[in-house]
Amino acid sequence: MIVLGIDPGTANTGYGVVERRCGRLFALDGGVITTRPEAPTQIRLAAIHRRVGELLDEHLVKVVSTEDIFFGKNAASAFAVGQARGVVMLAAGQRRLDVVSYTPQQVKHAVCGSGRADKDQVARMVQSLLSLGAPPHPEHAADALAIAICHLNGAPHAAAVAQSSVVPGVQAPDGDIEIHARRLRA
Amino acid sequence: MIVLGIDPGTANTGYGVVERRCGRLFALDGGVITTRPEAPTQIRLAAIHRRVGELLDEHLVKVVSTEDIFFGKNAASAFAVGQARGVVMLAAGQRRLDVVSYTPQQVKHAVCGSGRADKDQVARMVQSLLSLGAPPHPEHAADALAIAICHLNGAPHAAAVAQSSVVPGVQAPDGDIEIHARRLRA
Repeated sequence: MIVLGIDPGTANTGYGVVERRCGRLFALDGGVITTRPEAPTQIRLAAIHRRVGELLDEHLVKVVSTEDIFFGKNAASAFAVGQARGVVMLAAGQRRLDVVSYTPQQVKHAVCGSGRADKDQVARMVQSLLSLGAPPHPEHAADALAIAICHLNGAPHAAAVAQSSVVPGVQAPDGDIEIHARRLRA
Repeated sequence: MIVLGIDPGTANTGYGVVERRCGRLFALDGGVITTRPEAPTQIRLAAIHRRVGELLDEHLVKVVSTEDIFFGKNAASAFAVGQARGVVMLAAGQRRLDVVSYTPQQVKHAVCGSGRADKDQVARMVQSLLSLGAPPHPEHAADALAIAICHLNGAPHAAAVAQSSVVPGVQAPDGDIEIHARRLRA
């Protein structure tokens, strides 16, 4: 299964494409969609939508995995991130793909075994889980890869994926995440 | 000039298409894009995006006018409204159209002459300004028509439109709004 992880934002949308094959994880692509702050928002959103569409088609992505915003943040930032996530979800919806979302804690737990891991730990675990030569950078790309891994390790069975697609923000099955994370680390 | 006013939301996105011709306002279309709560968010956003695209093309819309969310609301609702507004702005961006946004106070002031007008007053003034047989309903459609009127009455000159497009959330020129609102009411 091929998963596109997305860390949404108008200025920087991190993306990571990860495949699970024979129980192993492979990073197919990763990076950041950066838009110019001086451009009107609608042009920036169109650029994000276009690039996400290309990634979905290019890699034959099956599921899009995104991060839920922490609602303690202020509403202005929630609004801006919501706009960017809206166009990402639209690109998935136009292709009838599943979209799942996880909290930052679930993502950290899936890659580091702890919901309180810091950014550096996440980047190093992503490097290790994907057998990369160095920790992925920039930070938004590392986050997006972690979000993709969270889904791949938390939803190994097709049934679980199909179910979660109907309930965005569904809780990841914690037990499964631990088992698979341990197996990959061994 | 033809303006599409949008009151964004995942469940209900109000729209109103208003034309200004020879100093008079005409309602060309208005209604609500309603999506099913049981459908996945990405499918609902795709439905909103498709319908907004149809409206833009059908009516040869020149500018999209949206409402700024009141940031005192909680972040969860800001996030959801942000997602819906993101796909509306995307539809405009893909057509290289200008998008402007106004605060609820600016919209009320533009149609009622007071930023503290209630929903009923707004609906009745929209009816009067557009010479409709009855106040427009449902409420989201009335709001969307008011948002379109706000732009048409506040930005009568092409230069003002071009300028405001680069600065989303730009302040409407209060003086102009009053002059034109008075003329239309006379």
